[in-house]
Amino acid sequence: MDMGTRARLVRVAMGEEPAELVLRGGRVVSVTTREVVAADVSIAAGRIAAVGTLATGVVGAATEVLDLDGRFLAPGLIDPHIHVESSNLTVTELARAIVPRGVLSLCADPHEIANVLGLAGIELLVEEAARLPLNLLMRVPGRVPAMPPHLETSGAALDDDDIAALLARPDAVALGGDINPALLLLADPATLLRIQTAVALGRTVGGQLPGMVGPPLDACVAAGLEDTHVAESVDEVIEQLRHGIRVLLTPRPDRLPPEEWPELAARIRRDGIDTRYLVLCTDDIHPNLLYREGHLDQRVRLAVGSGFDPVQAVQMATINTAELMRMDRDRGSVAPGRVGDLVVLDDLAAFTVSSVLHDGRVVARDGALAVEPQVFEHPAWARDTIHLARPVEPADLVLVGPEGATAVDATVVEFGGPKTMRVARLPVVDGIVAPDAAGDVNRMAVVERHSGAGASGRCFIGGLGIRGGAFASTVNHDSHNIVVYGDDPRDMALAANTLAAAGGGYCTVVAGEVRALLALPIAGLMSDRPLAEVAADLEAVERALVEDLGCRVDYRPLYALNFMCLPNIPLVGVTDQGIIETGTFSVVPPLVGAATPVTGNAG
Amino acid sequence: MDMGTRARLVRVAMGEEPAELVLRGGRVVSVTTREVVAADVSIAAGRIAAVGTLATGVVGAATEVLDLDGRFLAPGLIDPHIHVESSNLTVTELARAIVPRGVLSLCADPHEIANVLGLAGIELLVEEAARLPLNLLMRVPGRVPAMPPHLETSGAALDDDDIAALLARPDAVALGGDINPALLLLADPATLLRIQTAVALGRTVGGQLPGMVGPPLDACVAAGLEDTHVAESVDEVIEQLRHGIRVLLTPRPDRLPPEEWPELAARIRRDGIDTRYLVLCTDDIHPNLLYREGHLDQRVRLAVGSGFDPVQAVQMATINTAELMRMDRDRGSVAPGRVGDLVVLDDLAAFTVSSVLHDGRVVARDGALAVEPQVFEHPAWARDTIHLARPVEPADLVLVGPEGATAVDATVVEFGGPKTMRVARLPVVDGIVAPDAAGDVNRMAVVERHSGAGASGRCFIGGLGIRGGAFASTVNHDSHNIVVYGDDPRDMALAANTLAAAGGGYCTVVAGEVRALLALPIAGLMSDRPLAEVAADLEAVERALVEDLGCRVDYRPLYALNFMCLPNIPLVGVTDQGIIETGTFSVVPPLVGAATPVTGNAG
Repeated sequence: MDMGTRARLVRVAMGEEPAELVLRGGRVVSVTTREVVAADVSIAAGRIAAVGTLATGVVGAATEVLDLDGRFLAPGLIDPHIHVESSNLTVTELARAIVPRGVLSLCADPHEIANVLGLAGIELLVEEAARLPLNLLMRVPGRVPAMPPHLETSGAALDDDDIAALLARPDAVALGGDINPALLLLADPATLLRIQTAVALGRTVGGQLPGMVGPPLDACVAAGLEDTHVAESVDEVIEQLRHGIRVLLTPRPDRLPPEEWPELAARIRRDGIDTRYLVLCTDDIHPNLLYREGHLDQRVRLAVGSGFDPVQAVQMATINTAELMRMDRDRGSVAPGRVGDLVVLDDLAAFTVSSVLHDGRVVARDGALAVEPQVFEHPAWARDTIHLARPVEPADLVLVGPEGATAVDATVVEFGGPKTMRVARLPVVDGIVAPDAAGDVNRMAVVERHSGAGASGRCFIGGLGIRGGAFASTVNHDSHNIVVYGDDPRDMALAANTLAAAGGGYCTVVAGEVRALLALPIAGLMSDRPLAEVAADLEAVERALVEDLGCRVDYRPLYALNFMCLPNIPLVGVTDQGIIETGTFSVVPPLVGAATPVTGNAG
Repeated sequence: MDMGTRARLVRVAMGEEPAELVLRGGRVVSVTTREVVAADVSIAAGRIAAVGTLATGVVGAATEVLDLDGRFLAPGLIDPHIHVESSNLTVTELARAIVPRGVLSLCADPHEIANVLGLAGIELLVEEAARLPLNLLMRVPGRVPAMPPHLETSGAALDDDDIAALLARPDAVALGGDINPALLLLADPATLLRIQTAVALGRTVGGQLPGMVGPPLDACVAAGLEDTHVAESVDEVIEQLRHGIRVLLTPRPDRLPPEEWPELAARIRRDGIDTRYLVLCTDDIHPNLLYREGHLDQRVRLAVGSGFDPVQAVQMATINTAELMRMDRDRGSVAPGRVGDLVVLDDLAAFTVSSVLHDGRVVARDGALAVEPQVFEHPAWARDTIHLARPVEPADLVLVGPEGATAVDATVVEFGGPKTMRVARLPVVDGIVAPDAAGDVNRMAVVERHSGAGASGRCFIGGLGIRGGAFASTVNHDSHNIVVYGDDPRDMALAANTLAAAGGGYCTVVAGEVRALLALPIAGLMSDRPLAEVAADLEAVERALVEDLGCRVDYRPLYALNFMCLPNIPLVGVTDQGIIETGTFSVVPPLVGAATPVTGNAG
């Protein structure tokens, strides 16, 4: 806010100049006191000038007056940790979907697009968002790529200088939260340096503390972490709050699931626990769930339904978030001087949105944008990101057995939370190690798709139960190479090549036939089609995965599968360089007793 | 915190290196969750490494282990708005008095010493505090002097560059809170510029909102104010909290008095109001009250006694304050990474302090410092600040009546909250306008004491009821000239000259005899004697004022009298330039109908 704006707000508050907009007769959700208070609100220069009984003189000839007729007026919702890319939508289409739901600020960590396109990808996202009735604030990616280059090939990298420059941007709010906690436990100097830089610039330090209590939790907090978004149990939430950590609640099966929120709410009520450090969050919301359930507004409803007081729930999506991100001077409450990002609600507990204001102007009404966003054309370099020297062949995806052997002990990466490893005895057929449907062992391969060099990491995976067919995806955190699962290497190759032709996405193949495809041509991560279409295609992919391939992960399967590759999430991940152990940063041979990891070059 | 410290804390938390100190078996006051939790605490590099069940390996051969035996362990108290000078103690003697009470951080606005000695005075305070087991953080004075030079003469001034440089200091936390709200209501560019500078540097913007609700409150908040320390009623507190203002509670008769705190606590409980924006504060505590009642610890007890939950009361003196001052990364909670400023309590609700740690070392035990502070010698220039060209004479303190008149209408400044003005018909005796004991009108004069030029502003004052004698003081906000009240000009001159000889302080005179004197030779504001002696002398002054002079302000009279001069506090003040009206910044003639204000030069 500049001095001119401050002076204008003073004059409007005092009734010396008319406001641009007056909202009359609303019930303001006062998140600083946790009350609902009848009040009028005046807006000038895009910000709130006054709240309460307004000065006479505030309504002039040019002042627009909206009668709220007893409706609730809440601050715009702020998402503290989101990956835009995980919606599979461009930020334009995402805004079209979420702004009408009252979500007006995104603290977005663009590390997915950064892993593919680097700084240029980040700039692209920012440039597109600047045209939208939405604040895109940056959680600066703290580790692109996720792993050192010898453990994983990404499309781009950010070095310390890049990160420092991003942290210094005025739209930066935090160092991104997807740091590998193992690096903190090792007091890794590069990670501590990034924390140091963020703190010096007044930015919040994001993190993740999966299942962490006791000494590892202490160590990460002492290192500088201020938030986490992966808590798994009520006890863990409480313990982390006690350690001064802001806990971002992201309801999903692998974290504190929605079913356990009532237990959290009950515990908080019983013990009179302060909720100021509890924050609602989306992190990754896939388009089908976004379409079906909503976004951060759904989290507010979930909190209320779980037993949190409605105003407390709104606090958890507004002021608590703004305080965490040190932007409460500008956002997160309906108070003088704050930006005019406001949500008019017909019902508070149900969070039913009537209209939405951004920078003091109505931008959405009755579930749709009231202003048509400017079209944003994605350049060719952002739509052409699958680089393979030649089509993927079945031979690129399999493991060769030891000379003359008929069976071999193989490392099986076991799907689950956490991901684990086991050893299985597998047959060797025609020199190639075969999967074992009866033993629930499928093939898995990660084909590098950025450089065209085409290394592929190969191994076996348990717990998926795929019988006949293949599934491939370019959405696999964080390097977004092509991952492919299945039993038949020909179907697997077809799935991978289908994605290469589509520019990326998700694909299922059965018996030589593509059954479902969601094309994500922008960076291999996003589509510029509208939510309804993208959601329908993703539903089809998930359905094919379960119904056609027999995948046993039948509840939101992609939420889990997309993280199979990520070595940062315990205990293991798979990259184009093979199986990587989270805690040790070491490569685990896919065949037991093999001297070196067996990877190959498909190029 | 540097990277080396972060790495050391990680290793100690993980049990890889021994801690310096382990506090065993305490009950931690968890201010982030509002609970009390049994936990051990390890300390390394002066900071907290871990809280809870500590890693094995944390206790080494050189590790000190303190058994807390079930005692409470709370964060060190943080005072959000204090004037060290108002204790009439050096910061060394103040630390001796308050550190054993658990007060470890002071957000101090040094504008009193700055008005006398400028930047050098501020540096002196900082330099002295650096030797003490106490954090002196700076609320940067936003207006030194309080008034433009033609309305008041101060000893020094800070310009915009000085203020910007002070705000950029690493120990600066806020722009001081004693801005004249009238300037904000006028959108005064100089004031807005200071706010802008503070915000750009990430500092909090302090303010004062006396009795303000409605449009003026909106205007001040929109201008940028973030806290206030002068709320007068429960309704005002709630209204200001709703506006996103942090309300600093300072129990005194002219603000929300202690008797009304139970009403506030009951209202908050009844309506489930969030208390995160409520903060306990001392502002000005005189030495006699400090000696008798305590400091910020007394506020905690008062809050508990008024019905606040004890942990909530501790929050109001720790985490709430740290969040307001944007220093919660470093202070305000018992959490990993925070500085080892801790208070061990025998009883939580009574806030009875057993021992105190600063930077992870025990610095006080059983009510006294455990470490003797290094002696700090105040330089001669700080002890020689009363500059008069010649002794004050009775003629310097009186008003000459109009030629030949026997009576005149005079402006009487009326003591009270707010201070007002009335007109009284006063006799003219031997050409001099006389006071009127029956009409409760005394003489008042402010003699400039900084430059030696010796201008004196003269007027009449009502509401004091002084009969026989005089009272003088160099403690009168903010310019700290010599103010003198009384009926006999000879007694008044003696009182002023006694203070000049003492280097400043408080003095009462009856019938040509000094009855009580508290010498404050450092800047005319502070003594380097211990609290007990200074408190006793101040008690004697207050007793003499009431008992010998008949002053009707019998409850903590100096709290009120010290603000009689200050034109920033409504509706009027008196300076060496005469009567100044708060809202209009104009000089009011002391004799009605006089063409120009009647001031004179004593030099």
